[in-house]
Amino acid sequence: MARPRPLSGFPEFSPASRIVEQQVLDGLRRTFELHGFASLETRAVEPLSQLLRKGEIDKEVYVVRRVHEEPGEAADGAAEDGLALHFDLTVPFARYVVENSGTLVFPFKRYQIQKVWRGERPQEGRYREFCQADIDIVGRDTLPGHHEAEMALVMAEALTSLPLPPLRMQVNNRKLIEGFYRGLGAADPAAVMRSVDKLDKIGAEAVRADLVATAGLGEEQAEACLALAAITGTDARVADRVRALGVSDPLLEEGLQALVAVLEATAGIAPERVEIVADLSIARGLDYYTGTVYETRMVGFESLGSICSGGRYDALASDGRTTYPGVGISFGVTRALVPLLTRGVLAASRSTPTCVWVALVDEESRPAARRTAEALRRRGIAAEISPDAARFGKQIRAAERRGIPFVWFAGAAEDGGDQVRDIRSGEQVDADAHRWDPPAEDLRPRVVRAATD
Amino acid sequence: MARPRPLSGFPEFSPASRIVEQQVLDGLRRTFELHGFASLETRAVEPLSQLLRKGEIDKEVYVVRRVHEEPGEAADGAAEDGLALHFDLTVPFARYVVENSGTLVFPFKRYQIQKVWRGERPQEGRYREFCQADIDIVGRDTLPGHHEAEMALVMAEALTSLPLPPLRMQVNNRKLIEGFYRGLGAADPAAVMRSVDKLDKIGAEAVRADLVATAGLGEEQAEACLALAAITGTDARVADRVRALGVSDPLLEEGLQALVAVLEATAGIAPERVEIVADLSIARGLDYYTGTVYETRMVGFESLGSICSGGRYDALASDGRTTYPGVGISFGVTRALVPLLTRGVLAASRSTPTCVWVALVDEESRPAARRTAEALRRRGIAAEISPDAARFGKQIRAAERRGIPFVWFAGAAEDGGDQVRDIRSGEQVDADAHRWDPPAEDLRPRVVRAATD
Repeated sequence: MARPRPLSGFPEFSPASRIVEQQVLDGLRRTFELHGFASLETRAVEPLSQLLRKGEIDKEVYVVRRVHEEPGEAADGAAEDGLALHFDLTVPFARYVVENSGTLVFPFKRYQIQKVWRGERPQEGRYREFCQADIDIVGRDTLPGHHEAEMALVMAEALTSLPLPPLRMQVNNRKLIEGFYRGLGAADPAAVMRSVDKLDKIGAEAVRADLVATAGLGEEQAEACLALAAITGTDARVADRVRALGVSDPLLEEGLQALVAVLEATAGIAPERVEIVADLSIARGLDYYTGTVYETRMVGFESLGSICSGGRYDALASDGRTTYPGVGISFGVTRALVPLLTRGVLAASRSTPTCVWVALVDEESRPAARRTAEALRRRGIAAEISPDAARFGKQIRAAERRGIPFVWFAGAAEDGGDQVRDIRSGEQVDADAHRWDPPAEDLRPRVVRAATD
Repeated sequence: MARPRPLSGFPEFSPASRIVEQQVLDGLRRTFELHGFASLETRAVEPLSQLLRKGEIDKEVYVVRRVHEEPGEAADGAAEDGLALHFDLTVPFARYVVENSGTLVFPFKRYQIQKVWRGERPQEGRYREFCQADIDIVGRDTLPGHHEAEMALVMAEALTSLPLPPLRMQVNNRKLIEGFYRGLGAADPAAVMRSVDKLDKIGAEAVRADLVATAGLGEEQAEACLALAAITGTDARVADRVRALGVSDPLLEEGLQALVAVLEATAGIAPERVEIVADLSIARGLDYYTGTVYETRMVGFESLGSICSGGRYDALASDGRTTYPGVGISFGVTRALVPLLTRGVLAASRSTPTCVWVALVDEESRPAARRTAEALRRRGIAAEISPDAARFGKQIRAAERRGIPFVWFAGAAEDGGDQVRDIRSGEQVDADAHRWDPPAEDLRPRVVRAATD
């Protein structure tokens, strides 16, 4: 074949970058499991009709059909309208919950790390195939509010375990803003929210005009909405600042308490790695959020937008009789990592898991080399044997090009024993494959962060 | 939504079954990495034309296009013929190697664990979406034969680390059989191979007739081919048995030596878990194999066919100037696991990673419970807090339904300290969240094998 070109929007990693991604996924999994989230994977396809029902994503869905299927033929007996690739992990999870509600135990906590597909125009931070890591907690009929604080706590803890730049998690509450707009006398709180949601894009003056023209507010009401959106804070004083605006409403009060509960539950998280801040301008575009909402930005990479977002929804799914309220956050793994890898902010210390390259004197000694490698592996040390018995200088360079730190020489010691060389320093010492250990930091490839980020 | 039905051919696991799958994938990854295989993931889609070039899979390929794409519109600017989901991991890997040959270091060892899609008629062991775990070693221009032994060694070691039924890995060599047919004077060795490949399906008598009628052999030649196919063995004596048939040919001799090398290199593998046997009836249907070929069956589940197959191919990929020979094996994870899970041969000891359920006296004590859980998690013990302060009996049952082994009671000890109860035995003891450890076997969910398999 002629040399193939990459497909725009379908990023693929080098072996070294994949090591970075794997360690990020391992870190997420570890934290999620420590908090009792069970792993789940759903199939890649859903009935097209189900995906198209879910809002404004329809232009971006990829349909899937067998290549020899006749036009009009059902893609699958079980789905008359054909199948499409999922565009997120929330819709498939909602379907899975309803399908399996008879056997799941609620509240059900799950994490899900999978690829999703969207036919969007590719650009930095936007891909056609990308990996998401979601956590959700879903209840049957009810879901206590403390899970909204738990969600922020778990995801913030997971993110701080990763080699990412410092993060800023912004939290708000839909009850708070809706209650505030109601208490202010707004006839259409949803219209107010849609206006305020444009703050980032069009600025305060344009939003003020929009609030008056579109949402039907008076000048003073519009002013109060902008004052609310300007409030940020990291502790309970944020509630005082809201109350100082002089609006009162039971829903507002409920939202304030929930917001403060999130801040208090996450107060122990490493503040130099993630700042968790109430930001009352955050609304999240989607209609279905009903409580806490979350967005997260990487400091220095704000242009990527939020890399980790979610919220509380009172009806994740319903089968007619039963409703399943939930709260969830989704971390855009590919979205966050590709820019960091491309710019060299993150890198792997080597491009292979191998820690020790077992050199070969001649082809006849391969069985002995195999026993050496086996002794190392049995104690968890990744080892591979030279593919050929080239001269040692060439073998050392072969190891070097892969970033492998150690080369093993059978019978190189004065007493006929083995030696191992750290090829970075050139230091070579006597060693026994049944006892020798590499320094802990060399055992596996490490993720290295550039000093400049 | 009405309760959705599962899609035939797209299996999804319960949380408990997913735990089994994860531990299988973890075990594979661990062995592959200890042997120096780097992880790789390729995108889910390839240009349709590339997939259709690769043999007889064309009816089974799933094409992918954006839902609002006009008929005839290119699915993607970079791929004029549209995109399709990959049906294996070998074709994408071959493309990846050619695309990235300038930066990869050869011989390049990679493992790849991903979903693949085929529009086949679903049945046990055959799915439309399923997970494969592949290892391949690919060289530039040349690839030493010892990697064919390495491949069997690594996969056999990986499979024996898993909670599978006993395995039988059957090995043969294309050079051996081709050389034998040539030495026998067969005019068309490939036709002989195609006949012998039908042994399983049509039996020896029909193959004998086919060899005479189709492959143009005499009765005696046909008899010799059947005698070769009947040979099996686990050590070098298998070569003696072949030589005793009285056929000699340089290619045959080369194949015999390669086959014995595989048996000798894998002689150390736990024989009660995997029997590695030369079976000279194994040919593998596909044309492109040129050396060692592998098939693997689970004892007691032979009707599933081979769950782990592969071989040596002299031209995995080529960019016109350079050819990349390789050797690889693919383990059908879904194919092996679904029957074992469905029949209860494998199960997880619980359906959640949680080891400790922290009981709650009242909602006010949630922050204290959070600190207890945090102390446990900091030492690697997965803990979750009761979602409500129901009476303890109810909380214990909630933990029980998830299979969680321990429940934590704050302030339950005589001295006001905490206690932890093993809810299987009912034993409750004083405990400190900063020091208490569960028995090692309870820390994480275990994979349990039914005694009957």
